[in-house]
Amino acid sequence: MDALQRIEQALEAAIAKGMGDDSPPLLRQAVRHAVLTPASRVRPRLCLAVALACGDDVPAVTDAAAASLELLHCASLVHDDLPCFDDADMRRGQPSVHRAYGERLAVLAGDGLIVLAFENLAWHTLRHPERLAPLLMIVGRAVGLKDGIVAGQAWECEEQVELSEYHRQKTAALFAAATEAGAAAAGRNPAEWRTLGANLGEAYQVADDLRDVAGDAEELGKPVGQDAAHARPSAVAALGVDGALERLVGLIREALDSIPTCPGADKLRALVVGEMQRLLPPPIADDFAQRLAATGH
Amino acid sequence: MDALQRIEQALEAAIAKGMGDDSPPLLRQAVRHAVLTPASRVRPRLCLAVALACGDDVPAVTDAAAASLELLHCASLVHDDLPCFDDADMRRGQPSVHRAYGERLAVLAGDGLIVLAFENLAWHTLRHPERLAPLLMIVGRAVGLKDGIVAGQAWECEEQVELSEYHRQKTAALFAAATEAGAAAAGRNPAEWRTLGANLGEAYQVADDLRDVAGDAEELGKPVGQDAAHARPSAVAALGVDGALERLVGLIREALDSIPTCPGADKLRALVVGEMQRLLPPPIADDFAQRLAATGH
Repeated sequence: MDALQRIEQALEAAIAKGMGDDSPPLLRQAVRHAVLTPASRVRPRLCLAVALACGDDVPAVTDAAAASLELLHCASLVHDDLPCFDDADMRRGQPSVHRAYGERLAVLAGDGLIVLAFENLAWHTLRHPERLAPLLMIVGRAVGLKDGIVAGQAWECEEQVELSEYHRQKTAALFAAATEAGAAAAGRNPAEWRTLGANLGEAYQVADDLRDVAGDAEELGKPVGQDAAHARPSAVAALGVDGALERLVGLIREALDSIPTCPGADKLRALVVGEMQRLLPPPIADDFAQRLAATGH
Repeated sequence: MDALQRIEQALEAAIAKGMGDDSPPLLRQAVRHAVLTPASRVRPRLCLAVALACGDDVPAVTDAAAASLELLHCASLVHDDLPCFDDADMRRGQPSVHRAYGERLAVLAGDGLIVLAFENLAWHTLRHPERLAPLLMIVGRAVGLKDGIVAGQAWECEEQVELSEYHRQKTAALFAAATEAGAAAAGRNPAEWRTLGANLGEAYQVADDLRDVAGDAEELGKPVGQDAAHARPSAVAALGVDGALERLVGLIREALDSIPTCPGADKLRALVVGEMQRLLPPPIADDFAQRLAATGH
């Protein structure tokens, strides 16, 4: 079974266990819409890749960690799309949850997905109770009030926004958690894997900013030009396209250098570079590959 | 230190640990507003009362469980008050979070409080890891998608609402969790304590419906007549005032009878009856006490 199959199966299982036949029907549909719409699953795949590089000794715990990260990511997308934030009509090529099911069910689906993410960790660590608290604290921090997704999103509500802090929290937090959780799920020291995730997270956000100015709405499955339309902080607005791309190359180089010695290191490096090229609009992707190769990677 | 002091201290500690000086300032204020406004803390006091009746052998775990229940309750209030739900201006005698800080920070504060509630359980069970998963699953179920608060609230979005199911989920879930969590925090079997909490939760909802028709807005700290205004299901609408009161007496009698034999049983029974009388508007409270006395309690 490949990584994506493991993730989709873990997500299906989490939703099946988290909701019953007697859950409110529209809520059930909204949650399934939020999670099971085809998506790249980049965070859980990163988690799984790190766990595999670390030995993946208890696959059920790895799968639970990966699924919980994706559930939290989906929750944040559903709430980000709400009318009071981005008021987005589309997400992943489908109507956003609030467009399809209304604002109330979008709020509730997001809330319920946060809860499900934590429940899911507990369900799958009953035979390995010593792994629950570390995993819970890793994913909790990634989405929480101090320097997680919620904090990152809340910076949009402040008059004074510091760009790098904003970027770090909004996206990097869940990426850092993905590599840490992958290591923790496999019983390894998560701290050694944080730099990889944190850098990839910031890189992903820079790549997203580049797609927002140079991408194709249909291919992305969401509207472009949203950062400018909402006057949001963006690496492109701060550094220009060329400066943003240079920043991206620097982040990826550091990320690749940070990978601890382990049997799966080369495979992991290839995956990281391939992912980043896949995310960028084609002309920028080529430019990125050339600049990265010039650094020795 | 009395129960309320323990709870307030545990809430302050959770918020302090969950947010840093570098959290977004408005988010910090919104979270403190949501949690630290004076409130009855009925759910955490119930949790603490059960834990004490069970021996309270690790007070730090009891306090964490109690605080997490209240954090989740506060999260549900903040989201319930949003414009898309009740659009409430006031809560606990203060402006609701979305009135004071805007809709975006209200969504984020609620999300962050859900996350904090789970993190808080992990922080305080590091020396007792075997108690984390049971506590997490108890509070997760209480707020979750299957038969928790989120599911209960989502029934409001359905055309066909079954009143007792709605009541059970919307309020009873967190009360059932309060008694279960109190027992689990003290290392006892939570299942024996579920009926007490479930009945008290349904009773509390019936009492709330009675206050909504017969209460005083200033004393309650929130507007009355909201159930009728929003055409929401209500025990009073279904059964009338007299029928609702009779239902309340039946629920409390069963709750009192369900308390397992333990050193603190009598004290706990007195607390339960006192709480219920305190919640009801004065004339109804007297009527309640007389009817309950007639059942032998």
